[in-house]
Amino acid sequence: MNYGIVLAMLGKLLILESILMLPSLCISIYTKGTDTKAFVITILTAVILGFFLSRKEKKKRHIITVKEGLAIVSYGWIILSLIGALPLFLSGGVPTYIDAFFETVSGFTTTGATVIEGVEKLPMGVMFWRSFTHWIGGMGILVFTISLLPALGVGGFQIFKAESPGPIAGKIAPKMKDTAKLLYTIYMTITVVQVVLLLFGGMDLFDSLVYTFGTVGTGGLSTKSDSVGFYKSNYIHMVIGTFMILSGVNFSLYHQMFKGKFKDAFKDEELRLYLIIVAVSVFAIMLNLLFTSYNSIGLAFKDAYFQVGSIITTTGYSTVNFDMWPSFSKAILFLLMFIGGCAGSTAGAMKVVRILVMFKVIKREFIKMFHPRAVKPIKLNGKVIQDDVIESINAFLALYIIIFVVSTILITLENVDLVTASSSVAATLGNIGPGFNVVGPASTFAGYSQISKFYFSLLMLLGRLELFTMIALLVPTKWSKLS
Amino acid sequence: MNYGIVLAMLGKLLILESILMLPSLCISIYTKGTDTKAFVITILTAVILGFFLSRKEKKKRHIITVKEGLAIVSYGWIILSLIGALPLFLSGGVPTYIDAFFETVSGFTTTGATVIEGVEKLPMGVMFWRSFTHWIGGMGILVFTISLLPALGVGGFQIFKAESPGPIAGKIAPKMKDTAKLLYTIYMTITVVQVVLLLFGGMDLFDSLVYTFGTVGTGGLSTKSDSVGFYKSNYIHMVIGTFMILSGVNFSLYHQMFKGKFKDAFKDEELRLYLIIVAVSVFAIMLNLLFTSYNSIGLAFKDAYFQVGSIITTTGYSTVNFDMWPSFSKAILFLLMFIGGCAGSTAGAMKVVRILVMFKVIKREFIKMFHPRAVKPIKLNGKVIQDDVIESINAFLALYIIIFVVSTILITLENVDLVTASSSVAATLGNIGPGFNVVGPASTFAGYSQISKFYFSLLMLLGRLELFTMIALLVPTKWSKLS
Repeated sequence: MNYGIVLAMLGKLLILESILMLPSLCISIYTKGTDTKAFVITILTAVILGFFLSRKEKKKRHIITVKEGLAIVSYGWIILSLIGALPLFLSGGVPTYIDAFFETVSGFTTTGATVIEGVEKLPMGVMFWRSFTHWIGGMGILVFTISLLPALGVGGFQIFKAESPGPIAGKIAPKMKDTAKLLYTIYMTITVVQVVLLLFGGMDLFDSLVYTFGTVGTGGLSTKSDSVGFYKSNYIHMVIGTFMILSGVNFSLYHQMFKGKFKDAFKDEELRLYLIIVAVSVFAIMLNLLFTSYNSIGLAFKDAYFQVGSIITTTGYSTVNFDMWPSFSKAILFLLMFIGGCAGSTAGAMKVVRILVMFKVIKREFIKMFHPRAVKPIKLNGKVIQDDVIESINAFLALYIIIFVVSTILITLENVDLVTASSSVAATLGNIGPGFNVVGPASTFAGYSQISKFYFSLLMLLGRLELFTMIALLVPTKWSKLS
Repeated sequence: MNYGIVLAMLGKLLILESILMLPSLCISIYTKGTDTKAFVITILTAVILGFFLSRKEKKKRHIITVKEGLAIVSYGWIILSLIGALPLFLSGGVPTYIDAFFETVSGFTTTGATVIEGVEKLPMGVMFWRSFTHWIGGMGILVFTISLLPALGVGGFQIFKAESPGPIAGKIAPKMKDTAKLLYTIYMTITVVQVVLLLFGGMDLFDSLVYTFGTVGTGGLSTKSDSVGFYKSNYIHMVIGTFMILSGVNFSLYHQMFKGKFKDAFKDEELRLYLIIVAVSVFAIMLNLLFTSYNSIGLAFKDAYFQVGSIITTTGYSTVNFDMWPSFSKAILFLLMFIGGCAGSTAGAMKVVRILVMFKVIKREFIKMFHPRAVKPIKLNGKVIQDDVIESINAFLALYIIIFVVSTILITLENVDLVTASSSVAATLGNIGPGFNVVGPASTFAGYSQISKFYFSLLMLLGRLELFTMIALLVPTKWSKLS
């Protein structure tokens, strides 16, 4: 591995981060916040460190290997979070640096879990930065970097793959760079539309921006302890609810739609299954709420719609304390925490397409019972999926479950109950945010020890980079050296 | 499908069942129990129905198809349970027929979940029958039938496969029939040794038999509400604990050992992983108990050893109320509920070998990241595993999780908490017995509605026949008719 090129890329990322911090600095200065000094120190640190690291680059080499690509993504996300945590810590917004790190990782990974009780007390600059990290992390900051750089070779595609949620990194343009640019255009468009719609609904500009970042990035951090529930407007609930569901759709389908291929887009098998899961879940929870505590169909529908959209897209916003809902509704939400949105969206967790392929694998197995010698390839949208991809999907799902189970066992050492432990892990690994019981939507992760908060931070990073990227750096050398 | 041959086989099974009920009838007569009449009626019903069905057989046809094999196994287990439930119901041991069905399915599938509160009040004959079903179901009643019948063709092997726990039905003799006979010889030997050891420990003959059936069949039904905890003897705890762990080992390894190939047997990768999981779990729980409520290392070891052995082998006996243990210990036990024992043992759940193959699939995925074109076959005990088998294992694990999740959601409609619902499903699907909270070891499934009890009965059957067998009868005809 050529460490020079890795360090140089990290340097560039830090400089980019310092630039991305400027809007927050401006807000801090404009509001005469207590966090101005914190931002100035952080930006200077990032710039100096960035220039220092960038100097290491050898001018003539731009092609990177798979291993270098993996290292750039993994260390890149870690260093961005380490530096991004400084304003929160230096401004006194959180008591410890680990808390600040947790909160920043939660931001970049679009998780939305928080350790801050009474978020309203935060200075405006920090509040903005925290949510802006959702927007940066949603599409992948390195994808953005790639779009500004010349071709990077096989390792460059590895970076793109690592940051693109889902098993198949779909190129919608012949060049990776153009794909990245198209994705950012779509992302920006959705963002602007939602901000305008929220402004229409009477939200102020600051909150419109913050809630939009949290929605389109499927993050979930908010400016109020009551999350979206602070706003009593049904219009705002429906706008955010709908944009969460839209943000869980594969962005390349929007590209198809822009090109007028609406029919093709709606024939996408993953999109169909995603919409079916949303519809069935909303309907089931709505009925469950009506049969238990709710009197109004409209209200039951609205709350079910919002919460299903929030959880399946791994956003994590809430309009009500869904932890108080009956077990049936909670069990459905718990399941949605694992499914997640579509591949190629900003959502986390397993992704609908993997669940879809898994169903197809099971179906083929039944057919094989009766026709042991039948060779039946598995198709997605009419195209045969390579066995390699199916194997990767199986391995991903298995690894996801293993990490979930082992982490839950480790977290029970804090002597929290099984539902709290398992939902804390599911909510961080799947980049959702709130869980159930002690970490329910009306509560925070503040009660956990420092070491658990650090562990959850790792889980969020693991989940955002789809497990394999970070772990690959830790596997025995003989695996990567195999002839 | 030739229904004649299916019905004829079911008829034979019923006649066999009536014969297997004779010991219970004798006990009932000997103890002057209130259940004598119930046994007489049941045995007559089974014999008459059995002869009537057997008449349908066409003399000259002995070869059966895959579909007929699947039908024989599925309907066979259902009809055995339907008739086997009669003594419990007719003797008034349980209030409803569904309760009796649940209890009998729990017996045959070696689950050990009960709906009977205060089991001590049951008449002796019924008590014996209930536990004897464990012993019958442990090795598979149809495997026994096969050993008495001439060759059955591809469908016969399907029957053997369906009743043999694990992904690969290992023939240890050239003929399936001889394999079945060898397995029953091993089974009988272990049974006799355990009975003798329990008699040595001061247990009476009746209890020695009942607890041995529950142990070697990895069942878990007992004659006392306090399960094995009723006996205060450490010797008895250690004997039952050890025999549970022995019963979770692949029986074909005992055959190897009998032939003197000890070294080969202990080189078996599945056995090694199984013993490692047991050792690590016992050690972790022992430490957890010592750091919380226990003062004695010996006691902590004994309880951890017994409970780990009981849960990983899916037996379900208890010496203490492990539901009162700290979360960490409970979380480990919950995980063991899914792992289960070795393939080719009497244990249920996923089986260690499937977990082992899953780990190998994940490992190969990491290697593939660095060497995308490397073709690396997965090996088990030095032999390459066919891709077909790996696909089946992946499909099995995925289907297991899907059934677990969907069933948990359905059970929450009873408005029990998530831990109760999920552990009830895990405990029945995995053929364990007790779960946590409302269905903890000190409690029963009595609180569930009739419809849920029926659903749990189906889950137990699904689990015992390894999911695919029963569901295969329900899949659309076009899957089985595919050219």
